This record gives sequence, C-alpha cells and structure tokens, in this order.
Amino acid sequence: MPSDTNHFEVKPHRGLTEQTYVAVLEALEHNRPRLGPLIGDLHPADVADLLERLPRDKRGEVLQAIPFEHLGEVVAELEEGVKENVLQLLGPEEVRVAISELESDDAADLAQSVEDAGDATGPDAEDLLTDRQQKHLLEYPADVAGGLMQLEVVTALPTQTVGEVLEYLRDGEDYLPNNPGTIFVVNSHRKLLGTVSLNRLVKAPFTIALQEMMRREPLTIADDAPQNEAVTIFEKYDIHNLAVVNKRFELLGRITIDDVLDVVLAENHRQQARAAGLMEGSDLFAPVTQTMRHRLPWLVVNLGTAILAASVIALFENSIAKLTTLAVLMPIVASMGGNATTQTQTVIIRGLALGQITPQNAWALFRKEFLSGGYIGTVLALTMALGCWLLYGNRMLALVIALATLANHFIAAFGGWVTPLVLKRFNYDPAVATSVITTTFTDVGGFFAFLGLATLLLL
Amino acid sequence: MPSDTNHFEVKPHRGLTEQTYVAVLEALEHNRPRLGPLIGDLHPADVADLLERLPRDKRGEVLQAIPFEHLGEVVAELEEGVKENVLQLLGPEEVRVAISELESDDAADLAQSVEDAGDATGPDAEDLLTDRQQKHLLEYPADVAGGLMQLEVVTALPTQTVGEVLEYLRDGEDYLPNNPGTIFVVNSHRKLLGTVSLNRLVKAPFTIALQEMMRREPLTIADDAPQNEAVTIFEKYDIHNLAVVNKRFELLGRITIDDVLDVVLAENHRQQARAAGLMEGSDLFAPVTQTMRHRLPWLVVNLGTAILAASVIALFENSIAKLTTLAVLMPIVASMGGNATTQTQTVIIRGLALGQITPQNAWALFRKEFLSGGYIGTVLALTMALGCWLLYGNRMLALVIALATLANHFIAAFGGWVTPLVLKRFNYDPAVATSVITTTFTDVGGFFAFLGLATLLLL
Repeated sequence: MPSDTNHFEVKPHRGLTEQTYVAVLEALEHNRPRLGPLIGDLHPADVADLLERLPRDKRGEVLQAIPFEHLGEVVAELEEGVKENVLQLLGPEEVRVAISELESDDAADLAQSVEDAGDATGPDAEDLLTDRQQKHLLEYPADVAGGLMQLEVVTALPTQTVGEVLEYLRDGEDYLPNNPGTIFVVNSHRKLLGTVSLNRLVKAPFTIALQEMMRREPLTIADDAPQNEAVTIFEKYDIHNLAVVNKRFELLGRITIDDVLDVVLAENHRQQARAAGLMEGSDLFAPVTQTMRHRLPWLVVNLGTAILAASVIALFENSIAKLTTLAVLMPIVASMGGNATTQTQTVIIRGLALGQITPQNAWALFRKEFLSGGYIGTVLALTMALGCWLLYGNRMLALVIALATLANHFIAAFGGWVTPLVLKRFNYDPAVATSVITTTFTDVGGFFAFLGLATLLLL
Repeated sequence: MPSDTNHFEVKPHRGLTEQTYVAVLEALEHNRPRLGPLIGDLHPADVADLLERLPRDKRGEVLQAIPFEHLGEVVAELEEGVKENVLQLLGPEEVRVAISELESDDAADLAQSVEDAGDATGPDAEDLLTDRQQKHLLEYPADVAGGLMQLEVVTALPTQTVGEVLEYLRDGEDYLPNNPGTIFVVNSHRKLLGTVSLNRLVKAPFTIALQEMMRREPLTIADDAPQNEAVTIFEKYDIHNLAVVNKRFELLGRITIDDVLDVVLAENHRQQARAAGLMEGSDLFAPVTQTMRHRLPWLVVNLGTAILAASVIALFENSIAKLTTLAVLMPIVASMGGNATTQTQTVIIRGLALGQITPQNAWALFRKEFLSGGYIGTVLALTMALGCWLLYGNRMLALVIALATLANHFIAAFGGWVTPLVLKRFNYDPAVATSVITTTFTDVGGFFAFLGLATLLLL
C-alpha cells in the first residue's frame, strides 16, 4: 500500500460531550452569539440529545440556533414528551418546512405528532403532507407493520440483470431511497417474487438475471400485522429490510432494521413505564400537573386493591386483638408470595412474547411452575417456622406460618401462570396488567391463609 | 414492463406454523422417518424456535434430524438456557463442526457457550476455534464492544476509486463477509480515516476516489467500551455498521446492527429477569431443581427486608392491641408508597439509561419529583382520610392516616430518586437492585409513620 495515505487526519466523532453541554449552558447564560456555532457543529441526533437534557425554559433559544436543514431530523429524533414540547415552541411554518425534508415514514410520524400536540384549531396531519402516498401512510395505526413502513423502495423485474440494476441505482439518484439495502423483485403487477440484498448484488457477475439469484419464498409481513411480529422476524432471520405486502401479496413498502431497533427501544420503555402505571412520555421535565394526571389513575387502581386486601384483615380483627403477633407476621407471608409470583409471571410473560408457549405445552409449564412453587414454598415455610418457634416459642404459631406460606406459594405459582395467559387470551398486554392482579392474589391469599389458619388452629 | 414476468409463482415464507409444530409432535410419537423431511424444510431459525418450544426429553431426536450444514446456525440462534441443554445433547465432534461453519463472532460465542456448559473435563473454548484471530475474540468480556464485534470487514484506501472497490467486492468473494454493508477507509497502518456505506457506493460514479465521498469523523467505538454505548450509538445515528477501534484508532472489526438488535432484545429480557431475581436462562423447561437454585436467593433477600418491615410493626404491638384497626389500615399506607416509588424510580432509571440525567440537572429533577410526590400524596391522603372518617367516624384516625400517607409519598419520591443515582454512582445496575431497596424504604417508612403517629396522636 502507498504510504502517502498516512497524512490523512484521523478525526473521531465525539457526539455531545460534557464539555459541549456545559459550553451551551454558558452560552445561554452569558454569550448568546456563541450558541449558533456550537449547535451548528453538532450532528442532528446530538442536538436532539441536548434538547432532552435541557429544562423546558431553555429549549426555545436552542431551537432557534438549529440550522434550517437539520430541523426536521432533530425533531424526528426527540423522545415523545420532549417532541410535544418542542412542537409547541416552533411556529407552524417552521414545522411545515421541517416535515418537507424527511423521508415518508418520518414525515408521516412527525405530521401525526403535530396534530396530536396541537389543539382543535391546530393543523391536521394531512395538511402538513403534500404527497398523496404520504397521506396514505397516516391511515395505519402506529402499532401495525404499515405504520412502520417506508414507501421508498427499489424494485426490479426478475428478468433484469445485475448490471442493469446497478446502472439504474447509479443513474436514478433522485427518486431512490437513501438506503436501498434490498432490491425487491416484483412482476408487472407489483406482486413480490423474491428479494436480493445489495450485499449479494455487488458481489454477483453483471450478466446474471435477478431470477437466478433472488431469495424465493421472501420474508414478508402483512400491512395490518402487529408491529411485534415485524420485530420477531427481524430478530429471527437477521435481515435488514422486510417487505410489507397487502392481501394480494403486492409490495407496499418496506420496514428497515434501524426503525425496528428504535421501536424495540421505545417499546421497551413504554412497557416498563406502563407496568409502573406511568402514562407520561419521556420528558424528564414534564410539568408537575401533567405528571400528576399521568400517575394518579394507576395509584387509585392500586388503592382499590390495597383496600381489598385490608378488608380481608378486617375480617380477622378479633383474632389480631387476641394475638397481636399476627399483625407483625402477616405482611411477611403476603410479601414473600408477591415476590414469588413476580418470578413466575416474568417467565410466562417472556415465553408468551417469544411465542414459546402453545396450547400444547401450557400444561407442562403449569406442572413445572406448581412443583417449583411447592419446593420453594416448603424451604421458605420451614425457615419461617423455625424462626417463629425460636423467637416466640410457640409451636402452633410456627405451624400456622408454615402452612400459610406454603399455601401462598401455590397461589403465587397459579396466579403467575394463569394471569398472563388469560390476559393474552383476551388480547390485553400481559406485561402491563399482570402485576396488579397477581399481587392482589398473593396479598389477599396470604392474609386470608395466615389469619384464617391462625383463627382455626391457634385461638 | 413485459407481462411474461407474471407466471412466476408467489411463495411467501411461512416460518414455524402451528401446523408444522403439530406435525413434528406427531412424527415424534408415531412416525419417526417423517421427522427428517419436516425439519429439512425449515429455516435454521425456525428449527431453533421448535427446539425452544419442545420439552427437554423430545429435543434429542429433533437434533439428529437437523441437516449437517445448518447445525451451527440453529444452535447459535437458541436462547441461553435451551442452548446449554442442546450442547449437552450433542457430541463433541458435532459441536466442533457446527462451530467451524459460523462467522467469527458467532463462532467465538458458541465456543464460549460450550466451555461454560461443560464441566472441568469438557473442551476449552480456545480448542474449538482454529483461526488465530478468532481466539483473540475470546479475550473480550461479553459485555464490551469487542465482545460484540465481527472480524470480517471490507477495507479500502482513501485513494481507491468507487470502481476499484466495486471490482474488488465482485472478485474477492471468498474472503469477504456475507454482508459487507460498509467500506472502512483506512491508511496503510489500518488507522480509520472514514467510512462509505455500500448504499452510497453503488450510487456514486465509478471514477470518484473514496476520499472525496467518505464520511470523515467516522462514528467509532473503543473495543473496551461497554456494550450499551454501542446500542446508544446505533439508536442515535441510524447506522448499520459501527467501526471498533483500539486506542491508536486502528480498525479492529465492526459491530453490525442485527447483532445490536439481538443484544437489545436479550438485554431486555435479562433486565426483566434480574429485576424479578431470576438468574435462570430462558429455558421454559429447565428442571425444577435448577429453577429453585436460581430463584431462592432472591426470595431469601426479600425475606430479610420483609422481616425488617415486620420488626417495625413489632415495635408498636401495644398500639395495635389497643386499636386493631391499625393492623387493617397499615398495609394500605405501605403499599401506596410502594407503587408511587416504583413510578419515580422507573422515570429516573430510564433517564439514566438514556444519559439524560447529568450532575447539572439532577437537582431540578429532585425538585420536580418531590413536588409531584407532595401533590399526589395530598390527593391520596385526603381520599383516605375521608374514607376513614366515613367508615370509622374517627377524626383523629383520619388525620393520622392522611399525615402518614403524605409522609410516605415524600419518602417514596426521595427513595425513588436517590436509590438509582447512588447505585449508578457505584457502578451497580440500577435496573436490577433499585426495587428491593425502595420498597423497603416505603414499607418501613409507611409502617413507622402510620403506627408512630397513631401512637402519638391517638392512644
């Protein structure tokens, strides 16, 4: 190799460094004109990062320093909560220009966000898009394959040669997507026949026809299939592009792996958030009133279940009056059951998400969980019985806590197994609603078993 | 377009259908010879799926029906727990052959799995790999960028033209990766100067030199950087390949987006599992003894915290003896605090994972969470006070439950904010350990506040 290539300067990309962040804060306080150059040097994704970290009252000025041609990309990269806030800070004309510079899927998403963020007098998503096809994208709900698809694809006929396709890619720069990635081979009715990845295309001889080398039985997804199905296909088959087809197997568009990665990471968060009863977006600095509105409903639901558990205790107030130690020990029985049921349900929810649980193996799984619950419950029951006996010298109390603990572990195994399956059966997301149900099971079950057995055997 | 392309048959890929799964089960029971053709028709990823769904005693026979050349890919696709089981079922020679057919990163991973699954007399990972470079991959821990990297990359000099690179790709089929994806432009010392995506390469005129079109300031990651950093870079910049470099900025390999997607989905599960105290892999049908060994430690930790909370109650046994209603109401106060702290910590953990929380904004965040906690606590406190007053007609009891609830919501906000920050500060994963700490806060705090105030004000 010629050594004169070594004079090239090596410049790594640094992203949004702590240093830059502090410099921006300083510029905002003391030196506004510095802001422009600082922001102009950043990648749009880094500017989005910066906006997310800034408290709300400082975002407006940073927005005005963003170069015109980057605005769309910056806004598209923002987390939901922050995006909403930023769209309110931007003028309608700025938003329109930002959208016009994006590819079909990002443009449709952003137009929808604008509509959602605005009030009744704000613009409709449709009015923000000019192209007929883009409007069509708005018809898909966000959680189906069609809602994730991009219209920019490269298609070719099966009789075309590798050389012809490469030439077409080189000449037709204007209408082509930024990342062709995969060539979709279709017939004249746009029915999908096969796929050829760009990786294989560049390695193939020029004269070969696509029909000789295309992957037949191409991987596809229906436009109305749930988004999770697309994720599963990408995960399983290690592909980079997935064809979206209609009922007649005609090619509508494609889903790209970078969008899938974004969906997974966002879905990730959404599930964690929803499991905790958070309906808010990811703006750390959402106003307190909004935070309250988003968090209170879940706490009220939990207040209901807590009152239910408390009413079980109320049934046994007389027993507690006779032996107050029962009040001391009862939360232990309930809480151990709660932790055990969380373990079981986590395994089941995961198995359901991966499609590993079928009608054929659900019972085998129940047997396994019930058995483990029994063994684990026995170990813990004996531990607690021993502790009680040593501490209180009361053998009957030790027997009661042991039996109640064991019983509650069976309840935990059953609840952790049955709840996600039933929720799934009725099309609720098990990741969201399972916990509140199963811990109600183990709270009510734990209190009832312990206080009930104590009343029968001890008092 | 010529209409003679329409005679092509359209054949969608179907994956592992319910029908195929049932057919496999039937073949296993009644018709062993059917198994070969059934398995042979499936994509390796679908065979992996099949193995995951089958109870352990049926996996051996399916393994023997897998075509030789697919075995490596099938095993590499399996979930951890199932992979371990399958490696024990395979003979050492079969494992060696399976590994030899994989690309560098998958081969290294699988060799490591074999070593981990075996006992002391089993093979070392090193012995299973032949190539010197592959052994080098084993030195990286699984959770750093180097552990995720693939050695197969396409490099070129900055002075080479688009035409030269395309010709090189077409001719050098043997040594080239399956998915070149990105051309890494390096100098003669293999220092990274820039990158050109294959997408841009095929659209560029033949005579342009790479230095004219390459992305300068290329995105890179250090080989010893944590894996999560790679995920963040892929998410932010929507790239498909990331260069892995050493301290001297020399190119070592690359990380591909499909591997990142797999990592995210696996990490996803690992975090959910660890948060529930599950140390097991994802084998639904792990033996009961293994399940016990994996789940009990967490339950024992929780037994400890439950006893701690119970000992707070024990302090106030006299008060409970005087007014047993306290035993009925105390779990409500504790449980509401537990739910509120889960909401706060979910927001903080997410913010930390995204790098949105900095020393500069952590206090602003605390103010916000403390304020929300106060408002939400006030609403719930008033609700419960009203309920108590109506139910028990005891105004002092209503006051006590209101004050205790409010206090516990402040504790919840503080605990949910401080715990993840402190864990992160000391390099523990906040997603795993936060919950057990914060709910101990709110249990202990709730019982203490409620019973303590009741003792002071009521009795």
